[in-house]
Amino acid sequence: MRSANQRKVAIVGAGAVGSTFAYALAQSGLADQIVLIDQNRDLAQGQVLDLAHGQPFFPAVSIRKGSASDYGDAQLIVITAGTAQRPGETRLQLLLRNATIMQSIVDDVAKQNPNGVILIVSNPVDVMTNVAIQSAGDARGRVFGSGTVLDSARLRYFLSECCGVDVHNVHAYILGEHGDSEFAAWSMTHIAGMPIDEFCQICGRCPDWTAERNTIEQKVQNSAYHIIDYKGTTCFAVGLALVRIAGAILRGERSVLTVSTKLDGEFGLQDVCLSVPCIVSAGGVERVLESQLPDNEIAALRASASVLKEAIAQLDVEV
Amino acid sequence: MRSANQRKVAIVGAGAVGSTFAYALAQSGLADQIVLIDQNRDLAQGQVLDLAHGQPFFPAVSIRKGSASDYGDAQLIVITAGTAQRPGETRLQLLLRNATIMQSIVDDVAKQNPNGVILIVSNPVDVMTNVAIQSAGDARGRVFGSGTVLDSARLRYFLSECCGVDVHNVHAYILGEHGDSEFAAWSMTHIAGMPIDEFCQICGRCPDWTAERNTIEQKVQNSAYHIIDYKGTTCFAVGLALVRIAGAILRGERSVLTVSTKLDGEFGLQDVCLSVPCIVSAGGVERVLESQLPDNEIAALRASASVLKEAIAQLDVEV
Amino acid sequence: MRSANQRKVAIVGAGAVGSTFAYALAQSGLADQIVLIDQNRDLAQGQVLDLAHGQPFFPAVSIRKGSASDYGDAQLIVITAGTAQRPGETRLQLLLRNATIMQSIVDDVAKQNPNGVILIVSNPVDVMTNVAIQSAGDARGRVFGSGTVLDSARLRYFLSECCGVDVHNVHAYILGEHGDSEFAAWSMTHIAGMPIDEFCQICGRCPDWTAERNTIEQKVQNSAYHIIDYKGTTCFAVGLALVRIAGAILRGERSVLTVSTKLDGEFGLQDVCLSVPCIVSAGGVERVLESQLPDNEIAALRASASVLKEAIAQLDVEV
Amino acid sequence: MRSANQRKVAIVGAGAVGSTFAYALAQSGLADQIVLIDQNRDLAQGQVLDLAHGQPFFPAVSIRKGSASDYGDAQLIVITAGTAQRPGETRLQLLLRNATIMQSIVDDVAKQNPNGVILIVSNPVDVMTNVAIQSAGDARGRVFGSGTVLDSARLRYFLSECCGVDVHNVHAYILGEHGDSEFAAWSMTHIAGMPIDEFCQICGRCPDWTAERNTIEQKVQNSAYHIIDYKGTTCFAVGLALVRIAGAILRGERSVLTVSTKLDGEFGLQDVCLSVPCIVSAGGVERVLESQLPDNEIAALRASASVLKEAIAQLDVEV
Repeated sequence: MRSANQRKVAIVGAGAVGSTFAYALAQSGLADQIVLIDQNRDLAQGQVLDLAHGQPFFPAVSIRKGSASDYGDAQLIVITAGTAQRPGETRLQLLLRNATIMQSIVDDVAKQNPNGVILIVSNPVDVMTNVAIQSAGDARGRVFGSGTVLDSARLRYFLSECCGVDVHNVHAYILGEHGDSEFAAWSMTHIAGMPIDEFCQICGRCPDWTAERNTIEQKVQNSAYHIIDYKGTTCFAVGLALVRIAGAILRGERSVLTVSTKLDGEFGLQDVCLSVPCIVSAGGVERVLESQLPDNEIAALRASASVLKEAIAQLDVEV
Repeated sequence: MRSANQRKVAIVGAGAVGSTFAYALAQSGLADQIVLIDQNRDLAQGQVLDLAHGQPFFPAVSIRKGSASDYGDAQLIVITAGTAQRPGETRLQLLLRNATIMQSIVDDVAKQNPNGVILIVSNPVDVMTNVAIQSAGDARGRVFGSGTVLDSARLRYFLSECCGVDVHNVHAYILGEHGDSEFAAWSMTHIAGMPIDEFCQICGRCPDWTAERNTIEQKVQNSAYHIIDYKGTTCFAVGLALVRIAGAILRGERSVLTVSTKLDGEFGLQDVCLSVPCIVSAGGVERVLESQLPDNEIAALRASASVLKEAIAQLDVEV
Repeated sequence: MRSANQRKVAIVGAGAVGSTFAYALAQSGLADQIVLIDQNRDLAQGQVLDLAHGQPFFPAVSIRKGSASDYGDAQLIVITAGTAQRPGETRLQLLLRNATIMQSIVDDVAKQNPNGVILIVSNPVDVMTNVAIQSAGDARGRVFGSGTVLDSARLRYFLSECCGVDVHNVHAYILGEHGDSEFAAWSMTHIAGMPIDEFCQICGRCPDWTAERNTIEQKVQNSAYHIIDYKGTTCFAVGLALVRIAGAILRGERSVLTVSTKLDGEFGLQDVCLSVPCIVSAGGVERVLESQLPDNEIAALRASASVLKEAIAQLDVEV
Repeated sequence: MRSANQRKVAIVGAGAVGSTFAYALAQSGLADQIVLIDQNRDLAQGQVLDLAHGQPFFPAVSIRKGSASDYGDAQLIVITAGTAQRPGETRLQLLLRNATIMQSIVDDVAKQNPNGVILIVSNPVDVMTNVAIQSAGDARGRVFGSGTVLDSARLRYFLSECCGVDVHNVHAYILGEHGDSEFAAWSMTHIAGMPIDEFCQICGRCPDWTAERNTIEQKVQNSAYHIIDYKGTTCFAVGLALVRIAGAILRGERSVLTVSTKLDGEFGLQDVCLSVPCIVSAGGVERVLESQLPDNEIAALRASASVLKEAIAQLDVEV
């Protein structure tokens, strides 16, 4: 009934993140078909009903429950699936179980769809992206993670509030691990065409902007913890960050986004997935933009890489 | 910092429904300021952070935690607050507690804001709308409930799927209680300019359209039960239904919506809130559209009214 | 650089209608690539520059000047091209010249693209759709005209103003020729779930609704004349009507639209293109909806068909 | 029928720019009420009909013809009016006539509406903004011109095409006169968080980026000439640029935009209107952002100011 040119997005994992992403995606009008896939078929069915009942209020979009057979003709497969810690289970054991789930999903996708872009969202996203790229046969362009797109959005929001400037005019990036070792690349931060250092000098809204920036960076790092403490899960902002990435792929936008991608020599780093500015378009990550970071930011990026390499190494030993 | 003409929406209750409405509302670009108010200030704070971090992806909107002092200059106050059943508590006791909460909120609003529109979402929505109108001094125009706007959307979705026609071309209403006694007003249902009876004769997609319609009506009635069974709560479609109603108010649209309004002789009914087609605009319910329903639908509407009057009577006795 | 799944729309004719459609289409976010084609390459270049400079304000879309080689991979080809009357030229001579232009464009498209949908906009649209279908080898599904989609919108707007109801809740169709013999299908007109006759009885906003309806029908028929008198051309509303049709095709919406389609026995008519309610989706006109019109509306439809058959006959004689 | 909180925009001048802005504004959903005012009431009527017939395809918005009495309750008054050169008339005589028209409109607005924001679009926009501010009693915050917002958009578009990066990730400004003496502030240009100099070193898409930048700057300066040569008028991109500015005002966005504002010592300039980065919000220009421009850009800005001061002086002498 629908044409071969439709925009089909398959979402694996129908929990809070997957379903909220589906909700925001449906509102965006970007996709023609949204398929929700979950081992818990009742959960997938409940989310699909709750979403589909909103169709009179969405632009035209088909929303339905799917299965592995839906991977074949999807332009974009977004993997949010993961399992929760069992009593007595160590963090590493949990990681191993989740890595196995990831491998099995990516294997299924790779078999059916050699061209579709695979976006990894499951946490720890950088490690999971590593696992996924290995399973997919090292296709670093078309397999990547949501990385710090959300964290960069948080940084922009906090700066916007602090400086009293529309968030859409604040340009800033969080780089590195999507996790504790991430950092704000202040050297790349601009407001109104000015480097942040210059802007802060004329802004005059906060008494001590060095202190303020540290506070903001920490607020970004701790955002997920705070929200989970308050409400048990984060879903809203991440849903929109995923729509942003999905749009870059579905529309072929050549957008600059800090997604988690496997480095191959850039920034002096190899064989590790983490977030740096990339051009994202129809084929996934089309280019890593290797900007000239100052020494302290290069050091922070390498520290982040070390943390992640350790995690990957642990996983490899166990496997 | 913002002008007096901004569109401010206060949402009371930061649970799944209130926060998902805020999320969809922010994406819609309809509001300039969204304030979330909850007695559980941690929950409100968590939701606000999770929403506000998405600001780089929204049209410009301010999202923050608020308090009763925010009622004064809001164009629209949406009340989703309610409490859950305690162990050993009867349904009626629960209803009484929720009615008391509703009274207290509406009292607060009425004191500060004699013009703002108050939209009741808390369930049982028809009974709560009755309570709210009493508290607000019988302002039936500017106090009303979300009623069966969501149920009507569900009916349209199911008909659209069955008939293979774009849901935006299916026009149908669920009337009466937002609950078990609601019914599809088949006499008001049209597809492609044809009454449903005529459309079904030429459609030819289902073998027995009388049976199919009954099935669809039951699916609408049971939707909330099914979704709650599957995922524990409904939030997505209702969030959008509320955006639809909010848009009619904020933009002064004169839209036809089946909101829950206090009848004053229309359809031969008095002193009961239930859903019939109304014109909703900047001032709330501007007009009840008293269409000529056939006998069976009038009977169904009156049956629904009786159910609701009984609930109200019980409440009055207890109070 | 862009994927095979992109949504590409080719617009033939870069005059006021073609370029305004491109403008509205770019704002809608529906298309990934918009190509403007015109024999007057300077005009096409000027329009493309004026449109493309707006890209920072549009959702991501590529806008460029094209040529016949762009037909091959377009999902949708919209033909707005036509020439103006020369001094001393009769209306029939003009028609013949435009028919020849249409044939040549459709021949070019058909050679390169056996699947793309072709939407005819050039006036007289019903006659031109006839010509185009013949050139394309009688593919009635995928070749059709914009017909009375705009006229139906005008009818809804005038009814909305008259009745004080949101235009999105007014459901009404103009059928027949896109021209002087068109008529309002009052039997298919509904507001708030009520047939217009019933609605008028309760509305009470105009003193004489029979007279008012005649006035409105005439205003619709004369709209183009009035606007052309006032400003020399019509472009804004028609641009949006074309976006509506384009959306139904690009998204596979199965929308009900009064496009101009070649009848094959429906309503007792054959071998003539005119507007009746159709289901429009990815493949073009998927179904003609043959509703039960009352005698006076059937008579009006047949009168419209006669007018059009005469025009076609004249053309055939001349050719 | 509509509330006091509605968003009303009055557009003075119903020519190509005014009407195309109205068209884009209606599609944006930003305004509740759009009023078109023109001395040529037939033209205004024609544009209003052509726009209003599109209402079924817009978000809810009222579009109508208005008069000076509409200034009183508009949040935003956009002045696009101007007259064309008469045979034998000098450019200065034309300027004088247009200045007189501008004075008369702004006088009318100022009398009725002490708070509404007045956006000047009529060319030469910097000179006309000067005239308007004098008429309005030197209210520099709430009276300003569209300046180089369009030119900055053109610069971003050309850079985006050249670098192969989404235009929404290209941040660049044209400063100075909206006219021949305008210039690209390369020192403020950033792509992907990098100053343009750094980006060009890694981009590698053009052989000689110094030459390419000069070409682009010239293309921006000549865009209007080219488009007018090709199609007689520019309307599409400027319509969207005006929607961007209108959104900043109607939503209170605190956006950074290069509007034409009266300088009062900033950049060492006084008593001249030209475009520099400003924070634009509900009250108009809330702040001029005085960034540290390098010597060559300061020189270019002052040269632009001289050109404009001469034009103003000529006008003052004549008046």
